[in-house]
Amino acid sequence: LSLWCGFVLIVTGSITAREDTFERIKVLALAHVLRSRQEPGCLLHSVHIDVEDPLRLVFVEHWVDEQALRKHFNVHESGKFVRDASALAAETPEMTIYAAEPVTI
Amino acid sequence: LSLWCGFVLIVTGSITAREDTFERIKVLALAHVLRSRQEPGCLLHSVHIDVEDPLRLVFVEHWVDEQALRKHFNVHESGKFVRDASALAAETPEMTIYAAEPVTI
Repeated sequence: LSLWCGFVLIVTGSITAREDTFERIKVLALAHVLRSRQEPGCLLHSVHIDVEDPLRLVFVEHWVDEQALRKHFNVHESGKFVRDASALAAETPEMTIYAAEPVTI
Repeated sequence: LSLWCGFVLIVTGSITAREDTFERIKVLALAHVLRSRQEPGCLLHSVHIDVEDPLRLVFVEHWVDEQALRKHFNVHESGKFVRDASALAAETPEMTIYAAEPVTI
């Protein structure tokens, strides 16, 4: 990964809540977003509601490099968020990491 | 771009509506998503509402290659959606294209 200078890391993920846990997960997710945004190397961190599934929260994150993202994963509050949100979720949360470079076509 | 076999193209974009245009843009956006998903080479096309800004719609799209994305941009209804949504938006819509490869860290 260190070979790919110029790339950013894009992380996308989703958590689907139950009707009775949506508001709680949303509060946890927003706190996670606001906290993560302050971490070194975080270029973007945001959470959205799927228009087709109002119980599904979708995260989009941009990180400058692998080191920054590793640090983020190792922050205590990051782990606590994942555990707390997973316990409230309707299904196992998903996450994918991409090495990405802006292009024009 | 053709050198980067294994990559997908990720498109992210956003449209911020006005209070009086949000519902109309949301309907147009969802129709655009459902139509685009049927196009050759579309791996993902979805639209979400920013938790921090309920007037902001955020799109995430995955396309197999540049050719598929070019075709998508040239579909008449794609252009009409962009024009119609832009006319209703509070500010100029944003869009970025990334060449992206899934990685594990």
